[in-house]
Formats: sequence, structure tokens, C-alpha cells
Amino acid sequence: MNQLFKKVKIVEVGPRDGLQNIKDSISTENKVRFVEMLADAGCTNIEITAFVHPKLIPQLADSGEVCAKLAVRPGVQYSVLVPNAKGMERAIEFGIKEIAVFTAASETFNMKNTNTTIDGSIERFREVVDMARKNNIAVRGYVSTVFGCPFEKQIAPEKVLEVTGKLFDLGIYEVSLGDTIGVAVPTDVERVLEKVLAKFDMAKIALHMHDTRGTALANVVKGREMGITVFDASAGGLGGCPFAPGAAGNLATEDIVYTFEKMGVSTGIDIEKLTQASRFMEGVLGRKLPSRYLSTK
Amino acid sequence: MNQLFKKVKIVEVGPRDGLQNIKDSISTENKVRFVEMLADAGCTNIEITAFVHPKLIPQLADSGEVCAKLAVRPGVQYSVLVPNAKGMERAIEFGIKEIAVFTAASETFNMKNTNTTIDGSIERFREVVDMARKNNIAVRGYVSTVFGCPFEKQIAPEKVLEVTGKLFDLGIYEVSLGDTIGVAVPTDVERVLEKVLAKFDMAKIALHMHDTRGTALANVVKGREMGITVFDASAGGLGGCPFAPGAAGNLATEDIVYTFEKMGVSTGIDIEKLTQASRFMEGVLGRKLPSRYLSTK
Repeated sequence: MNQLFKKVKIVEVGPRDGLQNIKDSISTENKVRFVEMLADAGCTNIEITAFVHPKLIPQLADSGEVCAKLAVRPGVQYSVLVPNAKGMERAIEFGIKEIAVFTAASETFNMKNTNTTIDGSIERFREVVDMARKNNIAVRGYVSTVFGCPFEKQIAPEKVLEVTGKLFDLGIYEVSLGDTIGVAVPTDVERVLEKVLAKFDMAKIALHMHDTRGTALANVVKGREMGITVFDASAGGLGGCPFAPGAAGNLATEDIVYTFEKMGVSTGIDIEKLTQASRFMEGVLGRKLPSRYLSTK
Repeated sequence: MNQLFKKVKIVEVGPRDGLQNIKDSISTENKVRFVEMLADAGCTNIEITAFVHPKLIPQLADSGEVCAKLAVRPGVQYSVLVPNAKGMERAIEFGIKEIAVFTAASETFNMKNTNTTIDGSIERFREVVDMARKNNIAVRGYVSTVFGCPFEKQIAPEKVLEVTGKLFDLGIYEVSLGDTIGVAVPTDVERVLEKVLAKFDMAKIALHMHDTRGTALANVVKGREMGITVFDASAGGLGGCPFAPGAAGNLATEDIVYTFEKMGVSTGIDIEKLTQASRFMEGVLGRKLPSRYLSTK
């Protein structure tokens, strides 16, 4: 497999994407401890929380406290999801050095999720990115429903190209393409990436695959074979439970790290320490997490 | 993905491989109903039980009754796992038209599993295959621990070639290569299959991947890309539980069928009817099965 480069970047989204829909009460101390354990394991890019209205995501209502309690670590980038200028103000206030914004490739999904059109989101980001630039903050972008939408079903790759192009035009440094409902199979990844990589720098495209139907890792391997070097994942598969209908189904960081390392592709993550972070969250939540690799330990 | 042929054969091993280690009491009627529902879903190759000593696999002690209660179905091949001449006698007695024998690519594993060397197994099969030939019974062969062994760890591909060759020499029509402990990643599949397919007819090689570390589907996709057209799977992922350490971790038939059908590769299986069969077993066992696809229904 000589087309594989020897190194990938894993963006750990467990503390934000993994926790955001969980109903259990989780203390700020435990969230901070979780992030620190992830950093100890070698995760260099961790999305730690979101500056969104607490009514929308009650679990992340303590986002400010989480940021305040985390000490700066050399070599580790802590990022925060930010939906608008108000969230951006908080990111600046807390000295955050990277934020992420999110839109979709489906108009219907974006309207239901953010109450605006895709172009409306992009306009919102213009101000956010401008504030970021002035404060030397990096901006990452998520495009959700790239491989399918619960409302529009099929999504044209041209729509993905259009949205991705607009995000790069704003000055966003990396765009993460999400299979939000976990419907993609490797031929879908091939079909979409062939077009995306013909137009954009492959080093700036990330994949964010959900394991809802068990296909996430096969899709990641296909993405890697096509040249992608950045992948989002969630420790333990947090946020996805295979035993709950319609579960989010985040791809487990353990499963992707196991696979890449055995394929000779370095992730920089110590899988044993990573499983300790996931075990810690299992203790906090009082239940098993869905990572397959974790279940063997 | 023009290198893909448009059709694959799925060998459903749920009723045998999936049930054999389950401690719950399952009635013969429910086992028969399960097999019939799988056949109703379009499964054409179903391994229904094993003629082994009841002390070794108590769950399959009713193998004779299962066979006696299943009516012959045109277009559906019911097979039975058979370890020796004594099991073969029973297969003949019950009018079984296909049996499967099993050995390993690891001497240590084979010794622990069957109390003989690999060559000892092959010698045992000679009599079995001879009885099969005289009775017009097809013989399939399993080679386990192809991608790793719990005792010997690494397995040389040359050992896989040697065992596979001996099985074909006996007159076995299809050899299923098993990742018994679920350690393989796609580059392992590539490395081993490159050698196997250089020597043997790819139409006669099957893959039997376990999902212990979440890699089974990615491995299957790689196998398919390399030309493999036969894959073993277990309805609902029966036999594998991601929440039990060291679980067998069978790849769920639903997950493989979803993936192949969406890739434009026909399995001949109706996924909705297949999930009904798995739901039925969930009812019998009183617990959820690990298939990701099933969890979305």
C-alpha cells in the first residue's frame, strides 16, 4: 500500500461531539480530566466544548469553566465549536487558539439545525472568521450531511464542492466532510472525494465518518487510500451507542488508531493511554462505550 | 470501482458459529425458525449446526433434530460443520448435501482446538472427504487464525498457502480464510491475499472476518476489491458481543449486506427480512445483537 503516507492527524471530538447529546450530569472536573487524559495519550487536536446557547446544548453549559480549567499544553491544540459572533467573543475571552464552525451540504438539514440557509451560515461565518483573523485564531469548518441527509436523502457532490469552496474562500484552514447519518459506503467516499480532491488541496480536507451502520472504518480506509490525512473520531465511540436506535454512532478513536498503526500509518496516539481515557468516561457514565477495540481490553 | 464484479455469495454462519458459544437455552423449534427466516430473506448458503460431541458444544446437542425438522428448499444449501468420520456418518444419515471441515494456520491453535497437528487434521479429513465424495456431498474447508493467532501471534502467509493447498488437494471445493481473533487490518488482507490469489482460483477462496476490533467490514471491502466473491457473516452479529471482553465478534450479515448493496454489489439477500430474522433471535435471547445496521431499525 505504497500510496499511503506514513502519518495522519486524528481530531479528537469526544469531549464536544461525543458528550453533547448525553443526558447524564457530568461534572466540569470530569470533563477536564477526560481532555487531559486524551492529551496525555498523545491527542494533539482536541475539540473540547462548544460556545453555544446552554438551552440548545445543556450538557455543554459549562464550556467557559472547561476552558478556564485547562492549562495550555505545548503541542496540543484545544478547539471550541462556535456558531456565531457571540460564541466567538467568548472564544477570544478564554484565549482559545482554534475554533470550528459548522454548516451542511443539505439546505433542509442546515435550516432545521441552524435556522438559516447554507449561504446564511456562510454570511454568519464571515464575521466570525474576521474576528478570528484579528485575534490570530485558526478556523476549522464542518460540512455535515455530505453523504446523505435525513430529509433530502441524496446530496449532489456539486453541492459539497460549492459549500467547501465558500468555506475555503472565507479563510478556513481545514474542512471536515461529515457523514452525519452514517449512510456512506466506500464507493460513496470514492465518488465524492474524486470530485473534492480534483478541486481542493487534499491536505486541507478531513473526514468525519459516523459508524451508524458499521461502515465508518471502511470509509476511513478508503479516504486514506485516496490521500486524506485528517480524520475525526471520538474516544470510545462516545456519542454513539450501537444499542440505541438512531444513535449518533461516532467512529471510535481506538478503532481508527488500532487500524492505522497496524497498517503502518502513525497517529501519534498511545492506544493504551487512550483506552484509559475512555475507561475513565465509562466510569463517569456508568456504562460501556461502543468502541470494538475497547471491548477487547 | 469497475474492478468489482456485481454479485457476491454470503455464507450465513449465524445458526452454527453464532449460536455455538451461547449459554442460554434455545429450543430446537426456535433454531429451526431462525434458519427458515434466514432462507426466507434470501440466504442461499446457511451453516445450520455441527455434528460434534455434545460435551464440546452443548448448544448444538440437538443438531440431529434441527436437520430433521428443516425441509429441503430449492436453491438453498444447508451445511453442517463436521469434525470427523463419526460426524460425517450423521451428515449422511440426515441427508445433508454440504459439510464443512475446519483446521488452522497455527499449529498451536489447531492442537488446542482439535487435539491434533494441522497434518493430523488433514489426514482426518481424507476419510471424511472420501465419504462425502461417495455420497455426493460438497465439502467446504475453514482455515482459522490466518491473520493472527492468540498463541503464536504472527502467522506466515506461507503456512496459509500450505494448508489451503492441502485442503484443495483433498477435493474441498471452497476454502474460507478466517481472522479468528479479529486482528486483521486491510493491509494484512492485501498482504495475505496477494500470495493466496497468485496460487489459487479466487472464486474458491472465502473470507471469514471477525469484528473484534471493528475492522471486519474494512477487511471485507479490501477482499472484494482484490476479487474475493464469497464472505461468511452472522445474522445480527450473533456470536459476537462488543460488550464482552474477548467476544467472538462475528461480522453482522446486515452490515455486510447494507454495504455491498449500496456499493452496487448484489448479495441476493433482502435486508429487511434479514433484520426480522435477527429480531426474532433478539426476542429468543432477550437481548440486543451487536449489528450496527440492526440498531438503526
